Amino acid sequence: MSIGPLQVDMAAAAVCLSRNGRMVVGVEHPVAREIKKLPAIAGVGLATAKAGIRYPDRYDVMLMCMSPGSSIAGVFTTSRTASPPVEWCRENLKGGVVRAIVVNSGNANAFTGATGREIVRETAAQTAELLNCSASEVFVASTGIIGEPPPLSKLLQALPVLAGSIATTKWMEAATAIRTTDSYEKVSTKTIKRLDETVTINGIAKGAGMVAPQMATTLAFIATDAAIEHSVLQNCLRNAIDKSFNCISIDGDTSTSDTILMVATGASKASVAKDEQFLAAFQKQLDELCLELALQVVSDGEGATKLIEISVSGALDAAAAHRVAMSIANSPLVKAAIGAGDANWGRIVMAAGKAGVEFSQTALSLKIGGILVASKGEKVHTFHEDQLSAHMKQSTILVELELGAGRGKATVWTCDLTEEYVRANGSYRT
Amino acid sequence: MSIGPLQVDMAAAAVCLSRNGRMVVGVEHPVAREIKKLPAIAGVGLATAKAGIRYPDRYDVMLMCMSPGSSIAGVFTTSRTASPPVEWCRENLKGGVVRAIVVNSGNANAFTGATGREIVRETAAQTAELLNCSASEVFVASTGIIGEPPPLSKLLQALPVLAGSIATTKWMEAATAIRTTDSYEKVSTKTIKRLDETVTINGIAKGAGMVAPQMATTLAFIATDAAIEHSVLQNCLRNAIDKSFNCISIDGDTSTSDTILMVATGASKASVAKDEQFLAAFQKQLDELCLELALQVVSDGEGATKLIEISVSGALDAAAAHRVAMSIANSPLVKAAIGAGDANWGRIVMAAGKAGVEFSQTALSLKIGGILVASKGEKVHTFHEDQLSAHMKQSTILVELELGAGRGKATVWTCDLTEEYVRANGSYRT
Repeated sequence: MSIGPLQVDMAAAAVCLSRNGRMVVGVEHPVAREIKKLPAIAGVGLATAKAGIRYPDRYDVMLMCMSPGSSIAGVFTTSRTASPPVEWCRENLKGGVVRAIVVNSGNANAFTGATGREIVRETAAQTAELLNCSASEVFVASTGIIGEPPPLSKLLQALPVLAGSIATTKWMEAATAIRTTDSYEKVSTKTIKRLDETVTINGIAKGAGMVAPQMATTLAFIATDAAIEHSVLQNCLRNAIDKSFNCISIDGDTSTSDTILMVATGASKASVAKDEQFLAAFQKQLDELCLELALQVVSDGEGATKLIEISVSGALDAAAAHRVAMSIANSPLVKAAIGAGDANWGRIVMAAGKAGVEFSQTALSLKIGGILVASKGEKVHTFHEDQLSAHMKQSTILVELELGAGRGKATVWTCDLTEEYVRANGSYRT
Repeated sequence: MSIGPLQVDMAAAAVCLSRNGRMVVGVEHPVAREIKKLPAIAGVGLATAKAGIRYPDRYDVMLMCMSPGSSIAGVFTTSRTASPPVEWCRENLKGGVVRAIVVNSGNANAFTGATGREIVRETAAQTAELLNCSASEVFVASTGIIGEPPPLSKLLQALPVLAGSIATTKWMEAATAIRTTDSYEKVSTKTIKRLDETVTINGIAKGAGMVAPQMATTLAFIATDAAIEHSVLQNCLRNAIDKSFNCISIDGDTSTSDTILMVATGASKASVAKDEQFLAAFQKQLDELCLELALQVVSDGEGATKLIEISVSGALDAAAAHRVAMSIANSPLVKAAIGAGDANWGRIVMAAGKAGVEFSQTALSLKIGGILVASKGEKVHTFHEDQLSAHMKQSTILVELELGAGRGKATVWTCDLTEEYVRANGSYRT
């Protein structure tokens, strides 16, 4: 699952002004750069508004409406301090049907107790009234400051405005409204054709910080016009996330609000589940869509200037390989060195060593940018520091570690740790 | 195990110039500031030299010699990529006796394979020849860049110089020679009196980065003139480390070289092991000495400007409390906020939630600086943001989390995450 040729394309830095006027720099992923518009998904309407949840004059609420009979799948944070919106979605997911998703940025509505639960209930109830559906068909997500409930009155005022301005074209606007410290919109779209049937999948996501998935990460909303019932859709989504959002980490912290929801409207009448080949093709495209969104999220991590791809092979099993790769991806020392262009490969060995996974260091070999720097437990003397330095200047850094213990392998992605990450997170709340 | 009244004393920032001419700032712990000289330990001689291991004109080797019959205890890194010196020490610890400890800074001699093992063997062999003992009684430790073996010839040249300049007074010099990016020497000394017997314990340590203990951390060398045989000494050391070095984290990374060695020369003739009360008094002083060293290490973490004490209570057991406390201590988002003086308490809740420990957020309460900020799963509205801001300006930040699930408790210490940490670790190797 190498990103290979994307590498040369990654140089573009996306720059925007954050709400406090400071420059936010991220590596703009080529997929995000190429997509200027997402196609319509039959049966999905979108609207955004400036509700003033936390900051004035900023799109901060998004409504996504689905035609009756749409199914839904979802994957959520494993945090013990999951937010009221996550608890609400988890409960209503059992019904398997959806009419609306309401999202706000600014305040996360996490650790907000009874107040937070009331806000979710009221938001869902009023949305249900506007759309003439059941409140249990309305899903809610919030992102922003933990511990601060979004003002209910502002949310309720925004809902009729949103319901009155729904359009099938507003995908990019929706991707904008769910942003927090993201420097660009995370979007992806895929099409699956079979005989005379065409199915489309759109996805939008937000990321930036507190991204270390255990089952899910960040906020992402995916929609397809295929006809897929809840349980099949749930399997498809979980498969895709295991190979994408569950393989990225920005800082090792796990959000209280991680929510990925996927809806299927069935408007295309193409029922992919009834045809094994069609289902496989659908899964493949969904996998790619989720990976593209996940790579956009990690490329645009707070303060990130580099995307780091870490492939571990030769572990006892895939889980062990994943654990070693994540230990490297979450090492502040590895990430700070890469951010500064220093090929401090000894720290990669250190991070592998602390992962709690069985291997013998005498069998270990390490490549950076395809250059063998360590083999059989020590430094290789054939490589030139110049070559290594040249790779470290790239905006995608490739780390390949072979443990020599078995056949398990895994690839994960992270970003570098820069002074900007520290600055951005020192001033986030105030 | 609150550090309580030390708090007001913590304002002093220790500033020194690192080898690349950049200012290194750490919070100088009052214990380190008070101790200008350590007393002699009968039976222990020390010497230091400038061997030019990595940098010119810098004390970078240390020799500690013990009188014949001295016993030794040791605790080491749990890393799977433990260094050749760690492997050597672990093997020779079985003998339980010691005549010398040789330490170098500059290069860590970790992941250096056969070359590294040869360096350790030769260093031990030549030291043994100079001191007329067995090589298995010589213990070795190295700290610095991983993957780079220290030059053997320079080490071997330094050994006779060291052996020829041994003195019982050179404790502070020894503490200087083992430093890497530390901005001050970490030292502590304790005395235990009983009837007409007096026993002294001295300890020195180095820290600064890559400090996240699993069984041990960093380099520390402790000596006593008490008569304590290997197995009793080993128990005493492990007990002390569990409550000190195993309760600190600077960055969540675990060194390949973590080594804590403790020697007992028996020169005082006081055999603490034969008297239960004396042994208890000895353990108490050793516990305090290790805690003082550990707090000095964490106060002087790379880029640190604040010491953070995290106490978790109400967990199902002590291990669960420790896990939650360490999850908070290792959260870059928590640490960056505290570094900037931002009381972003929601991130503390987030970090508790991701620890993988059972609790109900509706029972959770949180104090910062003694001020109740959250209770029963949501924000408390009685505290004043001003009070909280005033505490955040202190150089010791107190975090108290009550989980309401049981009676397990734990306290750990960490430091803040600052831009200086990122800067220091971007330029460490080159």
